[in-house]
Amino acid sequence: MPKRGFYDRETIERILDEALTCSIGIVDDGQPVVIPSFHVRVGDEVYVHGSSAGRTLRALAGEAPACLTVMLLDGLVLARSAFHHSLNYRSVVVFGSFDPVTDTDEKLHALEALTEKLVPDRWEQIRHPTRQELKATSLVRIGLQEASAKVRTGQPDDEEDDYARQVWAGVVPTRLVRFPPDPDPRLSAGVPVPAALGSIVGSA
Amino acid sequence: MPKRGFYDRETIERILDEALTCSIGIVDDGQPVVIPSFHVRVGDEVYVHGSSAGRTLRALAGEAPACLTVMLLDGLVLARSAFHHSLNYRSVVVFGSFDPVTDTDEKLHALEALTEKLVPDRWEQIRHPTRQELKATSLVRIGLQEASAKVRTGQPDDEEDDYARQVWAGVVPTRLVRFPPDPDPRLSAGVPVPAALGSIVGSA
Repeated sequence: MPKRGFYDRETIERILDEALTCSIGIVDDGQPVVIPSFHVRVGDEVYVHGSSAGRTLRALAGEAPACLTVMLLDGLVLARSAFHHSLNYRSVVVFGSFDPVTDTDEKLHALEALTEKLVPDRWEQIRHPTRQELKATSLVRIGLQEASAKVRTGQPDDEEDDYARQVWAGVVPTRLVRFPPDPDPRLSAGVPVPAALGSIVGSA
Repeated sequence: MPKRGFYDRETIERILDEALTCSIGIVDDGQPVVIPSFHVRVGDEVYVHGSSAGRTLRALAGEAPACLTVMLLDGLVLARSAFHHSLNYRSVVVFGSFDPVTDTDEKLHALEALTEKLVPDRWEQIRHPTRQELKATSLVRIGLQEASAKVRTGQPDDEEDDYARQVWAGVVPTRLVRFPPDPDPRLSAGVPVPAALGSIVGSA
């Protein structure tokens, strides 16, 4: 079976941590709304940054049922038949509801985790939020109590009769790659590229 | 303004066409459910393949309100302050409802488009669906009447006072990359890698 469900916390956490972005689902007056957003897991909680979602994310922060989904595309699965073409992926779906993060320390801690997820060691180098900026930052969190993962790996699962066909079959691996950094034209003279940035170039 | 909304069809179509995967939002008994899936745009319609969503996608095929969202992550925006860290992205949100695709010709045409989206010229090389396989394939479609795009590009939008800071700022470009194909161990001897696969390696 190439497609499998997982409920163990380690698999779920690894997928959530590798995914840079997520999709948030809420219901707005009967209408499902899926908002792309940016998240970070800290322990048993997933924090989602509010600015990307604006009004809708603010509406989230109640007891309304919600869903957070991430997907990592790992490859294109090219089978011998149209029917068995597929994708290799790892996904996580979290059900629950979002709580607003109002405690200043928790907010700062989550912002630090979000920043460090982009680039390790960045938090120490940048200007931290002012009280006003913190107030303008909306963060919500959802727990991992109701989370599951789904994974497909490996080669196509062709019909036995099709294996003899003279057609190429296999997997085209895919990955989100970081390319060499493009410095801000207004960068202060003599500021070097952070070591952490050098090391991630070309990796996942 | 680095973040902007777009409603022109060309921008919307280009994003939908570049994105390999999408997130589908539906409401299941009051609970929002976001399902990662695989889509292709054909004219004014977006077709979504059913096998990835199983039971839930079958439930979709009614008049229930739905949402289809895609997001392309284009870069990490590293600002001088924590507050202005951001992501460059292009996203599309489509509201509407999904209709089941029942017509055989439309189904075949959509399957061809889905396959060709993975690898150009593939449809001609593979075994086409049998009547039984077609029956087992569920496809739904949603129109583009209510679609909008959101795009963030470019460098960080820092506070004027922060530009003098001695901290690296700029953009780390990101892109989903296809890596060299991994052939199925059961591949028939002497079958070459398709030309279309060679040409996409390393590109978006």
